[in-house]
Amino acid sequence: MEVKDCLVSAPGKAILHGEHAVVHGKVALAVSLNLRTYLRLKATSDNKVCINLPNIETFVSWDLTKLKHLAHDFCGKREEAQPMDAELVRRLREFMGVTNGNLDSCNTATLAFLYIYISLFKSRELPSLTVSVWSELPTGAGLGSSAAYSVCLAAALLCASGSISTPLKEFDHTARWCQEDLELINSWAFQGEMIIHGNPSGVDNAVGTWGGMLRFFAGKIIPLSRVPLLRILLTNTKIPRSTKVLVAGVKDKINKFPSILTPVLDSVDAISCMCEKVLSQMTSEPITGEHYNILEELIDINQHHLNVMGVGHPALDTLCRVTLAKGLHSKLTGAGGGGCGISLLRPEMDSSVVQNVIQDLRDCGFDCWETSIGGPGVQQHSLFFVKVEVLEVLNRY
Amino acid sequence: MEVKDCLVSAPGKAILHGEHAVVHGKVALAVSLNLRTYLRLKATSDNKVCINLPNIETFVSWDLTKLKHLAHDFCGKREEAQPMDAELVRRLREFMGVTNGNLDSCNTATLAFLYIYISLFKSRELPSLTVSVWSELPTGAGLGSSAAYSVCLAAALLCASGSISTPLKEFDHTARWCQEDLELINSWAFQGEMIIHGNPSGVDNAVGTWGGMLRFFAGKIIPLSRVPLLRILLTNTKIPRSTKVLVAGVKDKINKFPSILTPVLDSVDAISCMCEKVLSQMTSEPITGEHYNILEELIDINQHHLNVMGVGHPALDTLCRVTLAKGLHSKLTGAGGGGCGISLLRPEMDSSVVQNVIQDLRDCGFDCWETSIGGPGVQQHSLFFVKVEVLEVLNRY
Repeated sequence: MEVKDCLVSAPGKAILHGEHAVVHGKVALAVSLNLRTYLRLKATSDNKVCINLPNIETFVSWDLTKLKHLAHDFCGKREEAQPMDAELVRRLREFMGVTNGNLDSCNTATLAFLYIYISLFKSRELPSLTVSVWSELPTGAGLGSSAAYSVCLAAALLCASGSISTPLKEFDHTARWCQEDLELINSWAFQGEMIIHGNPSGVDNAVGTWGGMLRFFAGKIIPLSRVPLLRILLTNTKIPRSTKVLVAGVKDKINKFPSILTPVLDSVDAISCMCEKVLSQMTSEPITGEHYNILEELIDINQHHLNVMGVGHPALDTLCRVTLAKGLHSKLTGAGGGGCGISLLRPEMDSSVVQNVIQDLRDCGFDCWETSIGGPGVQQHSLFFVKVEVLEVLNRY
Repeated sequence: MEVKDCLVSAPGKAILHGEHAVVHGKVALAVSLNLRTYLRLKATSDNKVCINLPNIETFVSWDLTKLKHLAHDFCGKREEAQPMDAELVRRLREFMGVTNGNLDSCNTATLAFLYIYISLFKSRELPSLTVSVWSELPTGAGLGSSAAYSVCLAAALLCASGSISTPLKEFDHTARWCQEDLELINSWAFQGEMIIHGNPSGVDNAVGTWGGMLRFFAGKIIPLSRVPLLRILLTNTKIPRSTKVLVAGVKDKINKFPSILTPVLDSVDAISCMCEKVLSQMTSEPITGEHYNILEELIDINQHHLNVMGVGHPALDTLCRVTLAKGLHSKLTGAGGGGCGISLLRPEMDSSVVQNVIQDLRDCGFDCWETSIGGPGVQQHSLFFVKVEVLEVLNRY
């Protein structure tokens, strides 16, 4: 079977408000982060399946004959993503020689690819192809890089197997799938996330698939109809941290001071609701400076609340101080204790000011990107209109 | 009539927790601040009344004959402080030639003195005396310097007029008055505060009189039975601010984001209650590091909440950061927006570390004192045991 080439991308994810509070039954707002992961799928004729993940220096190639042999016992070409085929996962781990213990990110990324690939084709028809991936997202920074990868894998392989059609028409730069196809992409991406993370919430792959913003509350994920695109700076303090330890610390603090911390969680909940309301207003009425004033105030208040929860870090304080000196309001995003922060850019902000802030942040030893939140989810791209730097990387493999 | 000399002192005040929240019906904890105002009353025989206030460069002297003439119409030697004699205030303003507009601090301090002085003696028996005052407190910094002054005035003049006895026995260094006398001192000090401030809460003079800590809630002032003495640093950022503007700003913010700010006030209330509980435990059980850990956590959380209310300031952020770098936890005290901050010192903290922090803070352009909170209220001192530097200043006048 020969497949059609395609190039897809999916965005990362940031938590705008409600990180940690969501663990305690409050609303969180997750938004797409327009640092994207790009995946190019190319048909080949060398009877091989290759995957190239230069971000994590992983380049693997398998002989199709061997894979067809392995896949023979499985019914093949599944329509439904769920439930996960645990026996196939076990066999793939055996095949990769990684049956013992926890897998590193190279192995889980490869395993997720093989699992979706074998599940979506009939065993006899496994196609010869090369998948190359390049991500603008830092990995392991809580920005949904694995979900963006899983969403790209699902979209490209579902198209290659004919389960969904390629939406890109001639002369289009980019195109998106219909709602039904997005549902299918999301459900297969979730399988990838299951393999990579064990017990994902499903938020990251939902953001990667639908983009925009979604409300996450009591385990339910509700995409919001319309949100404005907001310019931001994303800063990675590069301070390593353990989400598990931070989540446990917040829980301990709530247990230690329930009467002090419980109202803070209520306040965070109200921040998420107010933010959602303001963003919705910004799509239905003329955007004013006051909309941005409120968004900035909510960011500042939530950053203080996150410090109260004990998930701040001196590097995040520095990030907030350095950006505020130039009039930007910032908060941590995700687990905190280091990691990443977002700074809102007002539309009128001069690009020379923005470049100055970026330089200030880099002088602190941080990585910093100018990007946006609230942009589109998974997309198919025309090879002729994708960013040159992305194409250059993908063409290398 | 000739009066007995005496030397008295009263402490300043700091808000430990609950500033601003108290305006919205929450608990506040006010504590005595052991930066004291000293007042020496000396009998003279030159038929003059003199007041020397070197802190505010005020030195005034009146001829007793003129004052006796003015006082003649008033019944004199009042036992009860309340209600204020508005006619006497009016006549005193006329006498001082300050009938128009608002008075500056020199005039209000002088007026408060004359009011209490004339009220406590029969008009014919107004004694010839000199009152000299020296304060360790910065004035106008929200640290209750006017109340400490009023408490000293009340205590010294009540003793001089024989309304209360002097508690100091031979060989005592210091002595305090009985509860009944303290009530009388406090009620006359409140009159002084009324003249100086117009509409005082009564908290500052209560702290100056009783010392220790008191709970202020819904207009009621409840002195707490026992509190430990806590070492602190008091830092004055010297950033000027308007309490009125700051209070109005908090109110505006609550009106703008009620669902976000109301829980924050609840959390501050819980902080005050928890702090009171821990301080009470520290007087009834062996003091441990964990007591201090909790006090530090409460300070940090409240400082974040005060920032959420919008009463922070970059100088206060600097103060918190500089002290935290040496392991000290700090918060603003009082109105915020600049002004003063307190930093808790743990008992085991080496004095060289403390000296380093003080130097760091002075390098930021701040004033800084090592002192304590929770110490005694108004006291009478023996001239032989009062601090040399205080006596030197008082002896100059």
